This record gives sequence, structure tokens and C-alpha cells, in this order.
Amino acid sequence: MAIQRPKGTQDHLPDGSPKLSLDTRAVAFQHVQDTARRVLERAGAQFLNTPVFEDPDLVKRGVGGSTDIVRKEMFTVYYFGDHGGFILRPEGTAGIVRAYLQNGLKQLPSPLKLWTHGPMFRAENVQKGRLRQFHQVDYEVLGSTDPLVDAEAISLMVDVVAALGLTGVRVKLGSIGDPADRDAYNAYLRELFGAHVERLSDDSKERLERNPMRILDSKSAGDQALIAELGVRPMLDFLGDEARAHFQAVQAYLTAWGVAYDIDPSIVRGLDYYRRTAWELHHEGVGAKSALGGGGRYDGLAEQLGGPLVPGIGWAFGIERLLIAMDAEGLDVPGQGGPLLYVAALDDVYVGHAATVAMKARQVARAEFAYRAVKPGNAFRDAERRGAQLVALIGSDEVARGVLSIKNLSTGVQSVVPAGDLHTFLAEATVPPSTYVQENA
Amino acid sequence: MAIQRPKGTQDHLPDGSPKLSLDTRAVAFQHVQDTARRVLERAGAQFLNTPVFEDPDLVKRGVGGSTDIVRKEMFTVYYFGDHGGFILRPEGTAGIVRAYLQNGLKQLPSPLKLWTHGPMFRAENVQKGRLRQFHQVDYEVLGSTDPLVDAEAISLMVDVVAALGLTGVRVKLGSIGDPADRDAYNAYLRELFGAHVERLSDDSKERLERNPMRILDSKSAGDQALIAELGVRPMLDFLGDEARAHFQAVQAYLTAWGVAYDIDPSIVRGLDYYRRTAWELHHEGVGAKSALGGGGRYDGLAEQLGGPLVPGIGWAFGIERLLIAMDAEGLDVPGQGGPLLYVAALDDVYVGHAATVAMKARQVARAEFAYRAVKPGNAFRDAERRGAQLVALIGSDEVARGVLSIKNLSTGVQSVVPAGDLHTFLAEATVPPSTYVQENA
Repeated sequence: MAIQRPKGTQDHLPDGSPKLSLDTRAVAFQHVQDTARRVLERAGAQFLNTPVFEDPDLVKRGVGGSTDIVRKEMFTVYYFGDHGGFILRPEGTAGIVRAYLQNGLKQLPSPLKLWTHGPMFRAENVQKGRLRQFHQVDYEVLGSTDPLVDAEAISLMVDVVAALGLTGVRVKLGSIGDPADRDAYNAYLRELFGAHVERLSDDSKERLERNPMRILDSKSAGDQALIAELGVRPMLDFLGDEARAHFQAVQAYLTAWGVAYDIDPSIVRGLDYYRRTAWELHHEGVGAKSALGGGGRYDGLAEQLGGPLVPGIGWAFGIERLLIAMDAEGLDVPGQGGPLLYVAALDDVYVGHAATVAMKARQVARAEFAYRAVKPGNAFRDAERRGAQLVALIGSDEVARGVLSIKNLSTGVQSVVPAGDLHTFLAEATVPPSTYVQENA
Repeated sequence: MAIQRPKGTQDHLPDGSPKLSLDTRAVAFQHVQDTARRVLERAGAQFLNTPVFEDPDLVKRGVGGSTDIVRKEMFTVYYFGDHGGFILRPEGTAGIVRAYLQNGLKQLPSPLKLWTHGPMFRAENVQKGRLRQFHQVDYEVLGSTDPLVDAEAISLMVDVVAALGLTGVRVKLGSIGDPADRDAYNAYLRELFGAHVERLSDDSKERLERNPMRILDSKSAGDQALIAELGVRPMLDFLGDEARAHFQAVQAYLTAWGVAYDIDPSIVRGLDYYRRTAWELHHEGVGAKSALGGGGRYDGLAEQLGGPLVPGIGWAFGIERLLIAMDAEGLDVPGQGGPLLYVAALDDVYVGHAATVAMKARQVARAEFAYRAVKPGNAFRDAERRGAQLVALIGSDEVARGVLSIKNLSTGVQSVVPAGDLHTFLAEATVPPSTYVQENA
């Protein structure tokens, strides 16, 4: 058997490939990236790209040394056998904040809106919507604590979803308050669960001292039964005045803009640097536990990475999950389409001539050619199979007269075009673009 | 000090960042990718994407176990400490051929033109144009041995360079013949160098038995002096009839299409699966030893990876090297530009209103807003700094009347626009797009 790709990875394939699904179609990934680019650039976000591997400390501090991601799901990278060690990035935020600090991006107008997309890596158990190499679109805003920035970020995430045509998406919104609010909540949880420590799972016993909020996230059925039984009060009850006012302001903006959301008191974040607003986007097509993506405010992260205080907020989508959701809604993505012109030679001696015509056509449009001489009937069949609009057949007559015989496959009209007029003919053969507003003048 | 990115990697940054060069500007990478996409899609190439890490065997067989790349420059990837092992891909071809075999792409029309772009990894010494994470554009054609495919591939590589505006690029073209031709050449080299084995470097002594052609590539000054002194005959002298006819056909097509090239007898390829056509694109801005990119025919690769015989040919550009060359020629890449509309509130209570106007504008154009109330003078200054064309100021009068006061910064014209007419106004404020031929109908 030929060599196979690593478990938990996918190839993104051209249309026409066997066994293709929306989340393995290369054009579908391009479509999501292009859509996100249009939506986010219209909002003034600038693209940036960070390396695929980073310092292990960045990931430990950025994602949290006690999380499953760092404890169990890291891909480590070595070279020369054992020289140094890096980590394949499990998410995009830490790298972007690292890049902001390292490259002096504080000098750009604030708040600074950034976005990126690319591969992320987690060595987790492989299942639907959970891959070891997956792909995200990330949006991050640095330099502002204004709740207007939070509301805009959530709204842009919803805009991307809407631009993709998805309708069954729910925004679950919460707040995890300020550090003092979380201290109060953790004290409450420690006392509450401390009276029932023998019923906690081993993982949650550990969490009880270090980070009791993460018990609420536990995957253990026993833990979840205890949580339900105890009637645990939500984090939202513990918000201080400032965090509460911030949360209300975010909601007021969203309501004014017609962005629907549900308050979800169960949304928590385990890491110290998270502040206030946190949210997830859910879609039932992806599965109950699997979010399309999520976001949150992380005002403490830059300091955690060794930098100064830089407030920040951001979100990420899993592109594969967006595509699974789109598939569940029966949404499709346009293919690359066929060429405007297909050129075929009727005799071997004219194959090079046919190629030359196609290459000239490519200066203004998509054009393909037959690599071998074909009979007219086969040329039309091949052209139709490729989705071509126009077919030019090259024989001795055309070459002698310096013209092209071009047939329009949809109208059936046959034209004789002087070779020098090819560009003009192709321009007239295409539908004019609809009126649109120019992106960048 | 805050955490830094790994040595030999770069961030691709937004415009306005301090110390920006063309090869660290995020828009420059997008520009190269977009340009390659336009050129290659017009030729009927389809995008595909393969994982960033692959089976070590794929890399060993695809790049060659005896090459420096595999012996010294591999990034290895582990998870759960030591469970399994992968390799960060050092190039794109092996993964694409692996994907072709694994996903049954043989069923698509042949020859199948594929392209991709993305990060590649080599743990080599860092210098200008040599990074540990670098980025390539790759083009591969599978399923044909026709010299027309070779010529088209070379021509498309030149088209990408030309579309970027580069003029100082030279194509160096060679042929390494068929396996029997290479056996004859290796026998000749073994005899020639065998008489001077004591003068060869240690590396080349090793190569003498295994792969004498690689001696010609040696970086040792002593080896190169010996090569010059012996007057080594080139591989081209050893081409068999078929390989010679193929090479001449490639040249005939290139000449007919006006693609300039120089025959370079020194172009060799060390691996068995390479066949016939091989070439490099050079630019003096990148440095004497550093090619912009190169390509070759690899008809034996699919079998090498455990698959059936699938002839193939392809090329790759280093995006960073293209950008270094563009910089050397004084070429620039357009920035993202400013927003069409900048909206600012004159009083704190209208900031949310200003944001709402900007969000509505974003449905058709790029729009930004001020996150705090500003004085009119400051609003115009901020708008100019951001490169905005139009400025809308929101005060009590505008809100009460349900209108927008919009000033065009280039003409100075002030308009009062009913809020409901915003989209129409923005459409008319932009320059209509120039006539173009639609890519996909």
C-alpha cells in the first residue's frame, strides 16, 4: 500500500475527486477564507500570519499548563534529533499576542483589529469535527477594554456565519467577570465542593485546589450529577459592578444591532488572564458538545507572556466545523467552474498552435487546450465535460487564414474570429459583472 | 523579555508595523498567493491542500534519504512525549503525489493540474532567503509525459513572475535524461572521479559510490576545483534518443511562445525518480546560489511512494525569495487601503449610533468608526490618517433628522444623506470598476 497521510489529518481536494465531502473540498476552504476576508477587511481588520510552531512557554502560558491541551494534546517539534523543542500551535491567539508584543504593533492605531487563518494542531482523539490538524479563522482586537469592541467582535463573528448562508447558529453569551469576582466565585465553589470532595472525580479533586471553576467543565458524569444536585450558582451572580456594567453594555449594543444571543451562565474560562465577556457559537449540525467557535476577552494575556498590559479580545472558528454545519443545512459552495475557452487541434501538427491560442487567451480569461489532436465530436464532448463556454477548433484552414472558428456551446452560434481579435471577442463573450461597490479605491 | 518567536521564523505583519520589509508584509504574501491563483486558475489548475506534517517515510522517499534535507534538516514531530513520529514537510511535491494516490485523483481528467501554497520547514542555518519556516507556491501536473506539459509548466512559472512585475529573472533549463542515460553518466563520473578519489571531500567520497552526480553539486571548494580541472562532460551529452527528442520539443514550444531560457548543463538532480526536464529560475537580487524556485519532471516518484506509475512534473517558488527579488527591483505591493467611510460621533451618547451606521455601510463597503466621541477637527484628522475617502459626523442634529452629513475628503463636497439612502450613496461615491473578463461564468 502506498504511504498514507497521518491519522487525524485531511487532504483538501479538487472538485471531481471521489468520496468528496464539503469539509474536504479545497474550494470550500477557500470560500470560507475569502468570505471571512471580505467581512473582516470591511471592518478594518488587517491580516497577519504567525509561525506554525512556537516556544513551548508561549503555549503553556497562552493556553494554560494545567489544561488537557498542554498536558495531553501537544505536538512537540524537534530537529537534529533532540536540539531544542517547539510546539505546533494549538490555537492562534497566543501567537498573535506574541507577534503584537515582539513587533511593536502598539504603534499602530488602537484598537488594532487583526485576523488570520491557518492550520492548528491538537493530538486529540479523532472523531467528527475533531482533527489533529484543523483549520481556523481568527479575529483579535488589541488595545481596548471598551464593550463596544466586544459587541463588534461578536457581531462580526455572526456576520461571517451569515455571509456563509448559515441560519441555525445560536450565540451563547456569558461573562466571567474580573479577577476579584472570580476569586470570590472560586472561594464559593471551593467551599461548596469541599463538603463533597469524596464524590468528585480524581481530575476534579485536583481542580478543587488549583482552579475550582474547571470542575464545572468536567466531562465526568459523576461530577456533572453532583453539580446538578448542589444547584451551583453561576459565575454571573458574582460579577462586580464594573464587570456587570460592561456585560450590560455589550448586550445593549447587540440588541441595538439586532444580533440575537442567549445568556448562558454555564460559560466559564479556566485561565487567569480571561476577563469579562466570553461566548460560543453553536450549531446543532456539529453536535451538542461541539461549538462552531468561540471567543473571549483576555486582558491579562499580554502580561502573562512577559509583556506590558495590553487588553485584548478575539474569537476563532473551526473551518471544518463551519463546513460540517453548512453541509447539515444543505448549503453548497460554488466550484471553480469551467474555462471560458477550450482549444483543440484537429491534427497533431497543430497541437502547439492550439496551446499558443489558449495561452494568449489566458492573458484575459480562463482557457484550456487539448494536449493531443482530437476529432471535432470528441473536442465538443471534452469541452462540455470541462464546463467550457466556447470551443475553438484548429485545423489547416484556420491556420492558413489566421482565424479561429469559435463555437458558443450554450447558444450554438459559430463565429470566425481573426486571431488578433481574440481578446476583444472573449471580453464580449462574457457576462458583464454586476454593479458593486469597490473595496479599495 | 516577552516570549520570542523561534529562530528562523518570521511574522507576516500588517502595514504600519515598525521595521517592515516586503518579505514580512502580510499583504505581500497575499499578493503573491492571489497573483499565482489568478495565473494558475486561468490555466485550469485546481487548488489542493495537504497536511503540514507527514509520515517520515514519505519525506525520505520523496526527498531522498541521503540528502542534507533528510539527514540534517528535518523537523520531527512527536506527541504524548514519544508516541509515533512525523515530519514537518520540507517541500510540497511528495505530499501532493501522496494525496493523488490516496484519494483516487487518477479518476479526474488527465493531465491533472494542481496547485497549492503554504508553509514548508527546514532546520537549516538561517540566512537571507533561508528560513526554517518558509512559504511556497507549488504547481504540479500528474498523468502525462508529454513535453507540451513541461513547456506549459515552465511558461506558467514565468507568467507568475511576470504578473508580479519582475523583469530580472533568468530561466536555466536542463535535462537529466532517463534512468539508463543517468546510469551511463554515473558510470562515466565514477570512472573519472575514481582516478582522483584522494582529492574528493569526505562527503563526495561517499557520493562516489552511491550517487556520483551529486558530486557536481558539492559545496566543497576542493571538489569544485577538481570538477573544473577535469573538464567534466555534462549530463546533456549522455541523453538517449527519447530524452533528447523530449528536451528539443520542450525548447521548441518555449521558443514558439517567446519564453526566454538558457540551457544550463550544470543542472542535475540527485534522486532516481527524476526524469528529463529540470529547470531553475534565478534572480540576482536573491544571491548567486539562491534560486527563486525550480522544477522538474518526476515520473518515478509515485512508484517510489508505493503507488502505480504516474508521470508527473512540477515546480515551486519560495514566496520570501520572490519578495526579496521584487524588493531588489524596487517593486511594491499595494496596501489594504483605507475605508470608504469613517464615522465619528460628536458626543458620547451617539457612539453606538455611529457604530451602527458603520456596520450598515459594511454590507456594501469598507467602513470604520471612532470608539469614542471626538471633536470634528480630530475626526477629519483621524479619517485622513486611516486613508478614508468619506467622513460622516454624528451629532444631535443628524440623529434628530435621521440623516448623515458626509464629507468627501478629496473633493471637499459635503452631502446630507437620508439614513435609508446610505448604500446608494456609497455605491455612487466609488469609482466604477474597469471592464474586465469574468473569471468564472
